[in-house]
Amino acid sequence: MSTDQADQRQSLPGLVAETRVAAKLLARLEATARNNALEAIAQAIETHVEEILAANAVDVTEAIAQALPTALVRRLKLDRHKVRDMAAGVRDVARLIDPIGVRHVRRRLAEDLVLERVTCPLGVLGVIFESRPDAVPQIVSLAVKSGNGVLLKGGTEALHSCTVLVEVIQSALMATVVPPAMVQLLTTRAEITELLGMEGNIDLIIPRGSNQFVRFIQERTRIPVLGHADGLCHLYVDRELPGEADLDMAVAIAVDSKTQYPAACNAIETLLVHRDIAPDFLPRVAAALTEQSVALRGCDRTRELVPSVVAATEADWATEYCDLVLAIRVVADLEAAITHINTYGSRHTEVIVTRDAQAAVQFRQDVNAAGVYTNCSSRFADGYRYGFGAEVGISTQVMPPRGPVGVEGLVTYKYHLVGNGAIIASFTGAAAQQFLHQDF
Amino acid sequence: MSTDQADQRQSLPGLVAETRVAAKLLARLEATARNNALEAIAQAIETHVEEILAANAVDVTEAIAQALPTALVRRLKLDRHKVRDMAAGVRDVARLIDPIGVRHVRRRLAEDLVLERVTCPLGVLGVIFESRPDAVPQIVSLAVKSGNGVLLKGGTEALHSCTVLVEVIQSALMATVVPPAMVQLLTTRAEITELLGMEGNIDLIIPRGSNQFVRFIQERTRIPVLGHADGLCHLYVDRELPGEADLDMAVAIAVDSKTQYPAACNAIETLLVHRDIAPDFLPRVAAALTEQSVALRGCDRTRELVPSVVAATEADWATEYCDLVLAIRVVADLEAAITHINTYGSRHTEVIVTRDAQAAVQFRQDVNAAGVYTNCSSRFADGYRYGFGAEVGISTQVMPPRGPVGVEGLVTYKYHLVGNGAIIASFTGAAAQQFLHQDF
Repeated sequence: MSTDQADQRQSLPGLVAETRVAAKLLARLEATARNNALEAIAQAIETHVEEILAANAVDVTEAIAQALPTALVRRLKLDRHKVRDMAAGVRDVARLIDPIGVRHVRRRLAEDLVLERVTCPLGVLGVIFESRPDAVPQIVSLAVKSGNGVLLKGGTEALHSCTVLVEVIQSALMATVVPPAMVQLLTTRAEITELLGMEGNIDLIIPRGSNQFVRFIQERTRIPVLGHADGLCHLYVDRELPGEADLDMAVAIAVDSKTQYPAACNAIETLLVHRDIAPDFLPRVAAALTEQSVALRGCDRTRELVPSVVAATEADWATEYCDLVLAIRVVADLEAAITHINTYGSRHTEVIVTRDAQAAVQFRQDVNAAGVYTNCSSRFADGYRYGFGAEVGISTQVMPPRGPVGVEGLVTYKYHLVGNGAIIASFTGAAAQQFLHQDF
Repeated sequence: MSTDQADQRQSLPGLVAETRVAAKLLARLEATARNNALEAIAQAIETHVEEILAANAVDVTEAIAQALPTALVRRLKLDRHKVRDMAAGVRDVARLIDPIGVRHVRRRLAEDLVLERVTCPLGVLGVIFESRPDAVPQIVSLAVKSGNGVLLKGGTEALHSCTVLVEVIQSALMATVVPPAMVQLLTTRAEITELLGMEGNIDLIIPRGSNQFVRFIQERTRIPVLGHADGLCHLYVDRELPGEADLDMAVAIAVDSKTQYPAACNAIETLLVHRDIAPDFLPRVAAALTEQSVALRGCDRTRELVPSVVAATEADWATEYCDLVLAIRVVADLEAAITHINTYGSRHTEVIVTRDAQAAVQFRQDVNAAGVYTNCSSRFADGYRYGFGAEVGISTQVMPPRGPVGVEGLVTYKYHLVGNGAIIASFTGAAAQQFLHQDF
């Protein structure tokens, strides 16, 4: 690397400019070229498994020495299996349908005047994530596939792991037509602050972390932010569960939605139960949840039916526990459940368990959330499970992209209009030419 | 109206809550019901043409008495023809394909577990616009069609016109199944400020007005804002125009793009000319533009070729004149033109005139703008001309919706997942069920 390059690397605007140029070149490449680059990355990860694990061991040792929380250390720690999964994940993304150059509109506006709407990359993404180093290959593969440059900032505790992963990826790209400069690792907090001010040069910020963290980012930038600011999901158990098996199903879904991974944003925080079914259902579900060490907090009616439940307060309805705690409320009807969800929910994923098809339709229609589920666990809300290969995050915003966001959410579109001298003056006045608006 | 209702109407949160309830009812309606309501609105506008014109005359008289700018008075003033166009515009929207309930994804994730992605309304829109009263039926018809509630705030100078139009629309809706409360008129500036703070209750803010105005709104809300903050468009005339006719075409496109409606956001502000063609092209285009009273400001090379042109400064490249003024710059090649556009452009609409297909492709690929045009006027960038029936605005953001935004930009989607007791626990561990991910 020449001194000039070294100097340039030290300023963030220089680095961003370099990434933009690389992204522009990447955006021009055919799908095959991008997919070949992904295969090269996957192979490089497999080849460099020892270096990756060695760097990760340094991070893990430091994290333990600093007495960082066990959950964090667990997320941080890689093993041979996880590294193999990284490579497999990159290949999954390579197999996805190309999201670039997809034509949504082809319309003849007039003779010799054709409008097309065609998908294209966003430009450069800024992704800020916490301790999980497997985020690096996942995000980079989505960026390569969608033709975007990407600036990554991982948690300080994962610095060695992220550094080696980015190095492995960049050297793998050297042997491909994808410019290695399309991916860059930022290493300081000061760079995040600077990045957030680079409106016009960074096209999308994707923060992955706690609610407070996402909100912190949102409040400090005018760049569009894709991020869930909360995952307060509900399970509503409707009246219409005629059989024993239906009650068992409802219990199984409640247990899975709460306990299968309580820290996930798609775990439920509140269970709503129709008052007619509460006497049958609540004692069963309470027993099953208690067996799984879930602490229960309930409304008055819940406590009448299951006396061991602790009293819930208003604050419970608005809390994302991220833990083995569940609030329970008995509601008068479907309408009351929907109102509760639309009041306290975070528009992430909401579930109804019912055998009443009409109730399921009304729930889907009236609940304002990215995911509206019937008779299944909330834990399915995930890009991989949806078949998106991977996700950059789950958006709880109302505007698209909404829900789990994969490559499709990392592209935008342009309107191409091709004429042969068409001017608007011909379409106005007495002898005005008429628009055809023929799709073909 | 009961006293209770009258009281509620006075607080904005009450009004918004009422609109949300109405929007929820509207969202449940079939396309036919929404289209019938649009026809009722169109008929009511035709029936009440005298009242509309009378109210408008009050606004116009006041505007003249207050010596408001002529351009504003012209936009404010309605006539029989314009009112007829309003009704026709509402019917155009009724004829559009229903944007709600469109299924984009249908995928079997596993046996008895089907994922669908289906479009749905956003919720409640807040639209803030300036003096043009024809915006009222246009926006309301897009809201009805897309199933959204809408709070309108027109310019003070159009208060009488907007009030009568909203009254006519609301009484027309009385006779339909669409709740009249889905549309509300706000009348004070204080209400805008309050509205901007209602995150979670207003889903999208659409400011229509000057750049400063749009920026003002963007800086004061955390609600998503759809708005062009600038319309700085370019026309690049490439080297490859082998015939006389091609040069004439380039001149006609330049004249149309600049003069057909200079105040429009899709008019060009800067003309870029390839240095090889500049000696042939610049004197011709300068003559044609000067004849149309366009003041020209050029770079040194432009002034060598056309001495009457005034010297341009750096500030000219960054200025949206909204007037009969055009900046001209001679560039070394296509790459230089693209760099100029990506530096100074506002990502709105950019035009290349060329007979070199490869140059057109590179321009489309590398220029970062919602519209990338070949051999036609920039003035086609408009929802009506694109066949969207009408538009709420033209977005220059990179993220979708981008460009002219019609009904399709006013919807979002939900993921429906329907199972029969599916839980994630079955998809993990040794005997894990596999995801199918079959689209059907």
